[in-house]
Amino acid sequence: MIILGLDPGLGTTGWGLIRAEGNRLSHLANGHLKTETKAPLPRRLAHLYAMVSALVADHAPDTAAVEEVFVNANPQSTLKLGQARGVVLAAAARGGMDVGEYAARLVKKAVVGVGNADKTQVHAMVRRLLPGAEIAGADAADAVAVAICHAHHLASARVRA
Amino acid sequence: MIILGLDPGLGTTGWGLIRAEGNRLSHLANGHLKTETKAPLPRRLAHLYAMVSALVADHAPDTAAVEEVFVNANPQSTLKLGQARGVVLAAAARGGMDVGEYAARLVKKAVVGVGNADKTQVHAMVRRLLPGAEIAGADAADAVAVAICHAHHLASARVRA
Repeated sequence: MIILGLDPGLGTTGWGLIRAEGNRLSHLANGHLKTETKAPLPRRLAHLYAMVSALVADHAPDTAAVEEVFVNANPQSTLKLGQARGVVLAAAARGGMDVGEYAARLVKKAVVGVGNADKTQVHAMVRRLLPGAEIAGADAADAVAVAICHAHHLASARVRA
Repeated sequence: MIILGLDPGLGTTGWGLIRAEGNRLSHLANGHLKTETKAPLPRRLAHLYAMVSALVADHAPDTAAVEEVFVNANPQSTLKLGQARGVVLAAAARGGMDVGEYAARLVKKAVVGVGNADKTQVHAMVRRLLPGAEIAGADAADAVAVAICHAHHLASARVRA
């Protein structure tokens, strides 16, 4: 099963693709999708939609996952992030694919083992869980982490079933 | 010139199409796009994207306009609205169409003549400016109002040029 993790943002959206076979996880690819800071907002969002759609078309993931948003104290930031997140969710779900949403705490717990792990610990564990994977940067690492969380969740759902 | 106005919302998105020939405006169509309250968020957003894309494909507007968001005191509402708004902007801009954004104050000024008009006044004026138009409801009326604002803005930009 191929899992696409996404960490949405208007300027930079991280993405990570992993393969899950039983409890075995392996890294396939990861990277960043960037929109032009100077372009008008509707054009940036359309570009983001096109890039996520292309990712889905190119890699044919079976399922996708996105972190739930930490609602920021700054309403303008929340709005900006919300707009990018809506586009990413719509593009991922467009082909009929299920898209899981996970609280940040659950993602940290799945990757590090504790819900209050910091960013550095998460990234270090991502590299350890997927040996040899070159991670493009912080947003890509977050995207891979949410994909790992989704893999664990699906595996334990199978065990329970 | 055909102008598509949009009033985004996750549950209900209003839309209105008008034709602008010089200073003459006429009503073409308006309505609401609704998503299923019980469906998962990614599916609702994908559905919204598909409906806006279909509107654009069916009516081939030359340009579109959306009201700028009033950032709500409730961050969860802002996030929800932001997600729907991002999808609507991306779907409208996808074909390369320009999408104007207008502050609520400007929309009210364009339609009623004053920036602090209330909703009832806006809707009454929309009906007066487009005689014979049957407006589907409050969100559709807001969408038609932003289309009228965009028409005025484009007309005065032509005069200035």
